[in-house]
Amino acid sequence: MSNKSHEGWSVPAVDAVRVTPSTRVADLDRNGTPGFDGDKALGERLLEERGAHLSALQEKLYANGRATDENRSVLLILQGMDTAGKGGMVRNVIGHMDPQGVDHAAFGVPTEEEKRHHYLWRIRKALPRNGQVGVFDRSHYEDVLVVRVHNLVPPEQWEPRYDEINHFEKELVESGTTLIKVAMFVSLDEQKKRLAERLDRPDKYWKYNPGDVTERGYWPQYQQAYQDMLDRTSTEHAPWHVVPCDRKWYSRLAVTELLIDALERLDLHWPPADFDVEVEKARLAAS
Amino acid sequence: MSNKSHEGWSVPAVDAVRVTPSTRVADLDRNGTPGFDGDKALGERLLEERGAHLSALQEKLYANGRATDENRSVLLILQGMDTAGKGGMVRNVIGHMDPQGVDHAAFGVPTEEEKRHHYLWRIRKALPRNGQVGVFDRSHYEDVLVVRVHNLVPPEQWEPRYDEINHFEKELVESGTTLIKVAMFVSLDEQKKRLAERLDRPDKYWKYNPGDVTERGYWPQYQQAYQDMLDRTSTEHAPWHVVPCDRKWYSRLAVTELLIDALERLDLHWPPADFDVEVEKARLAAS
Repeated sequence: MSNKSHEGWSVPAVDAVRVTPSTRVADLDRNGTPGFDGDKALGERLLEERGAHLSALQEKLYANGRATDENRSVLLILQGMDTAGKGGMVRNVIGHMDPQGVDHAAFGVPTEEEKRHHYLWRIRKALPRNGQVGVFDRSHYEDVLVVRVHNLVPPEQWEPRYDEINHFEKELVESGTTLIKVAMFVSLDEQKKRLAERLDRPDKYWKYNPGDVTERGYWPQYQQAYQDMLDRTSTEHAPWHVVPCDRKWYSRLAVTELLIDALERLDLHWPPADFDVEVEKARLAAS
Repeated sequence: MSNKSHEGWSVPAVDAVRVTPSTRVADLDRNGTPGFDGDKALGERLLEERGAHLSALQEKLYANGRATDENRSVLLILQGMDTAGKGGMVRNVIGHMDPQGVDHAAFGVPTEEEKRHHYLWRIRKALPRNGQVGVFDRSHYEDVLVVRVHNLVPPEQWEPRYDEINHFEKELVESGTTLIKVAMFVSLDEQKKRLAERLDRPDKYWKYNPGDVTERGYWPQYQQAYQDMLDRTSTEHAPWHVVPCDRKWYSRLAVTELLIDALERLDLHWPPADFDVEVEKARLAAS
């Protein structure tokens, strides 16, 4: 990594937002910019510059996926309350990448078919293919968040899921998928502002759901469910990252850096030729 | 459409590249810029400007897909010889769109499982969902192109496919999907240059396949297969467009305009609120 890549950061993003045993959801400054000392203007400039770098790294992952059988893929898991900015993250961060190399999936209320299966069934079907960057807008963690808060299944059913998820993710990592788990935290006040904007603008009505206000009544329960999720499923092989989201520019830049870090760690190279280059040059010239 | 949208075009793209009964593949100027009088610099500037407009239109389609049950989707079908620029089209044109609203699928040599099914089986599985822009990098047309040129099945098997495809596409259009069929034509010389570049640059080896040179030996047969495809499957409900691709900037701009035209014809509006806005404002304020 060049020095330039650290412009604005006093602590690398990946260290600044990684969950530690002392991370307290209740104490998190959702308006903060952990590790980053710059302002919004610098953040937005860096988002474009680093987005271009991310795009170049992704092309190399995609190339390897096309040319080799070795499974390497990345899966970005986005969890967060309504208005935390999951959709904008996809548009503005994943939007830097080549659509050919992105496997995007959103997980809403389970369909009737999904309900008849194990909660990981729909997740397994949507895992990224070799060489792809998968993006989950919500995920299997819904099954220890909304499901728990609303008692959709009894505790004896959701309680074992933390361990199940850890096993599932270990299996994924061992099969060559790098997991980047991002918990996005917006404040109660900022959420109110964002919901109010959706009610003020007819071009945003489609984003509004009366259930979003109902859910605000369960805020403390959600914060506790998030805390337990972080405590019980942040593992060595698949750690959680906690990203404050009241400043969209910060959250987008931070996740861009998490993706860059993961791709750089793969230490990717352009796939070598599996043909004789000189022979092929001669064949082409004669064609 | 504002006048601005026609900057550079003496004939709208959608008319300039639409197949007519007199379209002759053999006579097509693959270095041409039909309908467009500007140069590369203007073309590249317009690609960015119009790409932003395309992105705004796509968001409206996506919003309708989220908020209504009425099926409306767009499917861009890209067919073309190797190096015509299908991948670059996805990266540079579809890349303007929100990844959440794009369903991308590439169709290569059929897998063993796909071979056991009807040739439309894998196609039906990949059709765009409500509110999505689907992109097919190759498609069911492979089954009257490479399959025909290489006699992978006997004529009595591929011959009926033209009619089958027309029926299939009529069904799609009637169910709410707008089809944009684009046949991308690169010249034999330009193809040679592009393949040579892949052999000169180690970061492009992964894009090279010795089979690409082999296929050059079948050029006339492919041109004939393309001609018959255009003659027999360009229909009122799903016309073909013929896009010269020796100049990448032109082909990308032309397809951007085809997508814009299709989305504008859908005459989309922001979905109305399906809740009482004032009641919700009060609920939110109290939350």
